[in-house]
Amino acid sequence: MSLIWIVPVSGVLALLFVAYLAWDVLRRDAGTTEMQGVAATIYEGAVAFIRRQYLTIAALAVVTAIVIGVLVGAFETFSETGVVGAQLGVQTAIAFLVGAAASALSGIIGMFVAVKSNVRTASAARKGVGPALAVALRGGAVSGFLVVGLSLIGVFLMFTAYGGFTQPQDAPFLIVGMGFGASFVALFAQLGGGIYTKAADVGSDLVGKVEAGIPEDDPRNAGVIADLVGDNVGDCAGRGADLFESTVAENIGAMILGVAIFSATKNPDWIFFPLVVRALGLIVSIIGVWVTTSLPGMRLNEGEAPMNPMFRGFALTVVLAAAAMYFVVTALLGNVFFFYAGVVGLLTSVAFFIITMYYTDSRWRPVQSIANASLRGAGPNIITGLAVGFENTAAPVIAVGVALIASFYLGSQAATTLGVAPYVAGVFGTAVATMGMLMPAAFILAMDTFGPIVDNAGGIVEMSGAPEEIRKGTDALDAAGNTTKALTKGYAIGSAALAAFLLFSAYLDKVAAVRQAVANVAANSAQGQQIWTIAHTVDIGKVEVFVGAMLGAALIFLFSSFAIRAVSHVAELIIDEVRRQFREIPGIMEYKNKPDYAKAVDITARGALRAMILPGVLAVAAPIVVGILLRAEAEAALLMVGTITGIILATVMNNGGGAWDNAKKYIESGEFRDEKGNVQAKKSEAHKAAVVGDTVGDPFKDTAGPSVHVLIKLLATITLVLAPLFI
Amino acid sequence: MSLIWIVPVSGVLALLFVAYLAWDVLRRDAGTTEMQGVAATIYEGAVAFIRRQYLTIAALAVVTAIVIGVLVGAFETFSETGVVGAQLGVQTAIAFLVGAAASALSGIIGMFVAVKSNVRTASAARKGVGPALAVALRGGAVSGFLVVGLSLIGVFLMFTAYGGFTQPQDAPFLIVGMGFGASFVALFAQLGGGIYTKAADVGSDLVGKVEAGIPEDDPRNAGVIADLVGDNVGDCAGRGADLFESTVAENIGAMILGVAIFSATKNPDWIFFPLVVRALGLIVSIIGVWVTTSLPGMRLNEGEAPMNPMFRGFALTVVLAAAAMYFVVTALLGNVFFFYAGVVGLLTSVAFFIITMYYTDSRWRPVQSIANASLRGAGPNIITGLAVGFENTAAPVIAVGVALIASFYLGSQAATTLGVAPYVAGVFGTAVATMGMLMPAAFILAMDTFGPIVDNAGGIVEMSGAPEEIRKGTDALDAAGNTTKALTKGYAIGSAALAAFLLFSAYLDKVAAVRQAVANVAANSAQGQQIWTIAHTVDIGKVEVFVGAMLGAALIFLFSSFAIRAVSHVAELIIDEVRRQFREIPGIMEYKNKPDYAKAVDITARGALRAMILPGVLAVAAPIVVGILLRAEAEAALLMVGTITGIILATVMNNGGGAWDNAKKYIESGEFRDEKGNVQAKKSEAHKAAVVGDTVGDPFKDTAGPSVHVLIKLLATITLVLAPLFI
Repeated sequence: MSLIWIVPVSGVLALLFVAYLAWDVLRRDAGTTEMQGVAATIYEGAVAFIRRQYLTIAALAVVTAIVIGVLVGAFETFSETGVVGAQLGVQTAIAFLVGAAASALSGIIGMFVAVKSNVRTASAARKGVGPALAVALRGGAVSGFLVVGLSLIGVFLMFTAYGGFTQPQDAPFLIVGMGFGASFVALFAQLGGGIYTKAADVGSDLVGKVEAGIPEDDPRNAGVIADLVGDNVGDCAGRGADLFESTVAENIGAMILGVAIFSATKNPDWIFFPLVVRALGLIVSIIGVWVTTSLPGMRLNEGEAPMNPMFRGFALTVVLAAAAMYFVVTALLGNVFFFYAGVVGLLTSVAFFIITMYYTDSRWRPVQSIANASLRGAGPNIITGLAVGFENTAAPVIAVGVALIASFYLGSQAATTLGVAPYVAGVFGTAVATMGMLMPAAFILAMDTFGPIVDNAGGIVEMSGAPEEIRKGTDALDAAGNTTKALTKGYAIGSAALAAFLLFSAYLDKVAAVRQAVANVAANSAQGQQIWTIAHTVDIGKVEVFVGAMLGAALIFLFSSFAIRAVSHVAELIIDEVRRQFREIPGIMEYKNKPDYAKAVDITARGALRAMILPGVLAVAAPIVVGILLRAEAEAALLMVGTITGIILATVMNNGGGAWDNAKKYIESGEFRDEKGNVQAKKSEAHKAAVVGDTVGDPFKDTAGPSVHVLIKLLATITLVLAPLFI
Repeated sequence: MSLIWIVPVSGVLALLFVAYLAWDVLRRDAGTTEMQGVAATIYEGAVAFIRRQYLTIAALAVVTAIVIGVLVGAFETFSETGVVGAQLGVQTAIAFLVGAAASALSGIIGMFVAVKSNVRTASAARKGVGPALAVALRGGAVSGFLVVGLSLIGVFLMFTAYGGFTQPQDAPFLIVGMGFGASFVALFAQLGGGIYTKAADVGSDLVGKVEAGIPEDDPRNAGVIADLVGDNVGDCAGRGADLFESTVAENIGAMILGVAIFSATKNPDWIFFPLVVRALGLIVSIIGVWVTTSLPGMRLNEGEAPMNPMFRGFALTVVLAAAAMYFVVTALLGNVFFFYAGVVGLLTSVAFFIITMYYTDSRWRPVQSIANASLRGAGPNIITGLAVGFENTAAPVIAVGVALIASFYLGSQAATTLGVAPYVAGVFGTAVATMGMLMPAAFILAMDTFGPIVDNAGGIVEMSGAPEEIRKGTDALDAAGNTTKALTKGYAIGSAALAAFLLFSAYLDKVAAVRQAVANVAANSAQGQQIWTIAHTVDIGKVEVFVGAMLGAALIFLFSSFAIRAVSHVAELIIDEVRRQFREIPGIMEYKNKPDYAKAVDITARGALRAMILPGVLAVAAPIVVGILLRAEAEAALLMVGTITGIILATVMNNGGGAWDNAKKYIESGEFRDEKGNVQAKKSEAHKAAVVGDTVGDPFKDTAGPSVHVLIKLLATITLVLAPLFI
């Protein structure tokens, strides 16, 4: 029984839900005139940056689309299916552009609503934490559901357009260009936004707080609006594009793995399955968000911690997702083992929540050890933070390792019934686990975008001079926002780790498909089977494979270095500009003249856009050059080791950065005491040391870490699309 | 023509040279009574720690030898050669203990002479920089030639004892236990020594300089002797054991690769080759050291930088090594392509010198960028240092990649003449390149141990109140010592990277040999060939292989985390003790009472020994557990990805740490100026920031980085020895 109709239906449902949420948020009270003034300035800066950034990205994307189209077109390899040469090139280029456009669209609209939500959250905070939380979460959900909904609709439409219902075994390979396009846009969006947000943050802090001695978010600081703009362009637009491409790439990868089972069973449901299960994930996430923001008893109760309703909502979503998984597996695959594999994936998402909480929350040893080290100075703070960052790679790797082996084992149990090799069924088991882990993605994305919205709301409340009482409420929400941001980064990297094997296997499938096409044999013929087996056996004893593996690991470190350095570089530009304004515009310090915020925003934007080019081009060019020089097997090693190194280094940077941040916040909270029991809070030596740690953690967790996350997806999609060039 | 007789001859020559050097150094003037007093205290502390450390290691080694003997013995796999079950277990256990004992011996004697050399260097410094340099380099050469000489003699004797001249194809596999034993000792020696030296350094600085406000190396600080002891136990004994095991493991790995060509050609020279070429490397290194310390015109000229004669000596050694390589290749292998491969290896050693200089010397951009960032505070200093550390992984990886591909290609050109597969000849080509790179190893080790000797000499000059003039000389030598330490760490990691492919291939050969033995077929039969091919094809599409790869990468990070954390932990013990002595021993501050140095040394020693256990056991246990649970192919992936990650992370930590250190020294030199052209030197804000960076870099470059270097060798030897368990 095919359930593929659920995909467009759920996609449309999601978009309707998005429209409802957007309408609901926008109709709310937009706050006092002061609040609206601040919000309008942020809005202008964000829109100006996004416009310029996406113009740059569009130009790069069009050039890349043409290059890819020509390169792929030059290889007349898909002769088996009658799709040859030029036609394949054009199809790939179009898929690339569709993916790029949809990714850009979800980033832009999500950010637009987020920017509008922040002032409404600030306004709602006057009525209480509960209403503010509801507005912020609904504003965040716009981004979340738009991303997942658009990705499902996009993949479904491209799949249909490229003959998915007549040639289901070929269509998944034809639409991989879409994943590449989405990753391409996401890379530059995340890099540019990430550099922007941290450069503005660090730059305006250094010149404002340290040099001029004025508080954070002070309106006399010309860089302060750039800082607030940064939260939106980095955390909202960047993350939205990032998760759009993740969700596209992983869906397509899972569909490619379904092709192998389709070859044996001739049942296209194996190819449809990933889309259907994600569609139901979208629907259960809608229920989760609605319940968390509306249902009495489930939504925030009086005096409760803001994280609680979100945890309840997440738990409900996971339980509903498990039920939906059971329904889809029974209906489409008819084999209960895959249901178990899906549950493994859902449990993995819970495991990542727990691991991330442990390493980044001040209630547990890791963050406390950083706070304790701060008593002995900045050096010990940094050393301990790095030790925590390095240590926290082990648990995620073990969790993913167990999930992969368990889901592979469960999948392979179905092999005999299906009449396929245990390997094929096992790999599909890992794909089902990945789809299971991704089912609550929309809910989690809503929580993620909740973070920058409440962060901005706090800034607006502060800058508009609202009373202490309200600020307390937004502070509580801001703390919750920090937790959700850390959790969603952990979830994103966890799903990337789980998906890595799937995408890696999809690359090997693609290599096999191209070789079968070159040899002009059918996939399910004896010779086709043999080609498939050879393509899946990468010989790591070969010297070029070893070199490819080394280059994959080094690429991740070099890319991170460029991203981190870009933040320092742009921060210096901002420092110079804020200094210049203090010097040349008379009366800023006496509130007689406003600083020229737009100029600072403009300089940050130009700097960030220029700085994103080098790491971006490195990320795109390196895998292509290595693939062409060292060929397909070395490229497989580059993909595998690059992905593994990327997952680990991103975990170090994301959670290490989060732990440093929270160690600082823990000290600021006034709850931290030294060995003699004296409270060490703001302005203490320990606090100064913790501030240094936070400065180091910032570009880690908000620029390099998230960008590496996009990079590993980009590696997967580039290699999938350009595999014919490397054969 | 067999040249194997050169091996024992050169080994004995090296030991005679060592005896001559030791005699020459020890007969020199031991300085003033004050100098001798300080030196004696250092000597006592070092000997006390080394005795206790090696007792602990010996106990661990005996237990491990028994466990390995039983495990290996339980697998009656080598039936083809008649060496079965229990006998194999006993042989492996004995080889393990011989390797362990020889490693311990070279560490201990090298450190003993180094400790005696420091006071004589201090004394010679009264006559000038030239004589002091000669004493220090000769003292360092004792360690260098002992390590390389003992390793050659040890491998040669074990090879002979295990039937190398009657069954040359089996003996290399039987003596791999020796490499494991050597790595095992080196791991604990480097960990314990590395934790000791940095904990003492950081701990006594924090409590002495920061809290009590007394200068560095002040005799009132109870931790100061522990600090000086640390240089010897960490940099001398630890590094000596480390390079002993490297040289053993790589020789044995190269001999295993020679077995494959022996199978075809029946010429045992292919198995002897690695030993012979290293023997000649030892002889040319003797010439290099003698020329650098004695020959007028080559030794230090008046007014010359201390690095110059060492560069001249290194250049001479490389040129002589190339000539020797040509001779050995022509005589033994009769194929000039392998000579070219050897030259590739020699050039790689030069490339690593240049890369390391660029990233750690204050003349170039990386260190200057860290100094510039220090103007903006500790946070920017750390961020820039990490960016430099991350960036500096690319050039070494590219250098090794080019060297591997070139030497593989050159080797494979000889395949037709030899009648072997191009793969077999190519892999041997990379082994020849590795042997070429290792030819000047003894010279480089001499330069390495030169570092801690001049460091200690400076401390002795300082503590004994010698005149300013002399201190200037030892300061210049100390700066040169920092350069040589950085260069040799770069060289060590470079040769490890080059050797990684060789050792990885040796593991695959071992897996093939065990499988052939289990199937009871000859290696050169058709079925044997097929088994060999299958064993060399690791399928990275398998889920457990992917998981093994992930675990390999995570292991490196977790191990580094433990090592770094151990330094912090022991440093706290020292801080408490120095504080206690200030409090409880009256009159320390007025020089009326001496602090109890021995007590501080004792506490550091106990702390370091306890702290080395957890990371050490993790390093040994993790690969065994993964191999047993996930089997041989997953273990291959763990080995490959663990090695690659280890090389990269060690490069980050070694060179990042070196760059931070030199940025601080650059600021202290008074040559560094801010944007306005003002000198920023000691006590400036920039200097304070640079000190924080140095504190972070210390455990990186002297504890975790070198320990990871040993860990990757340990992974290689553990997997080689225990391969039968994982089949």
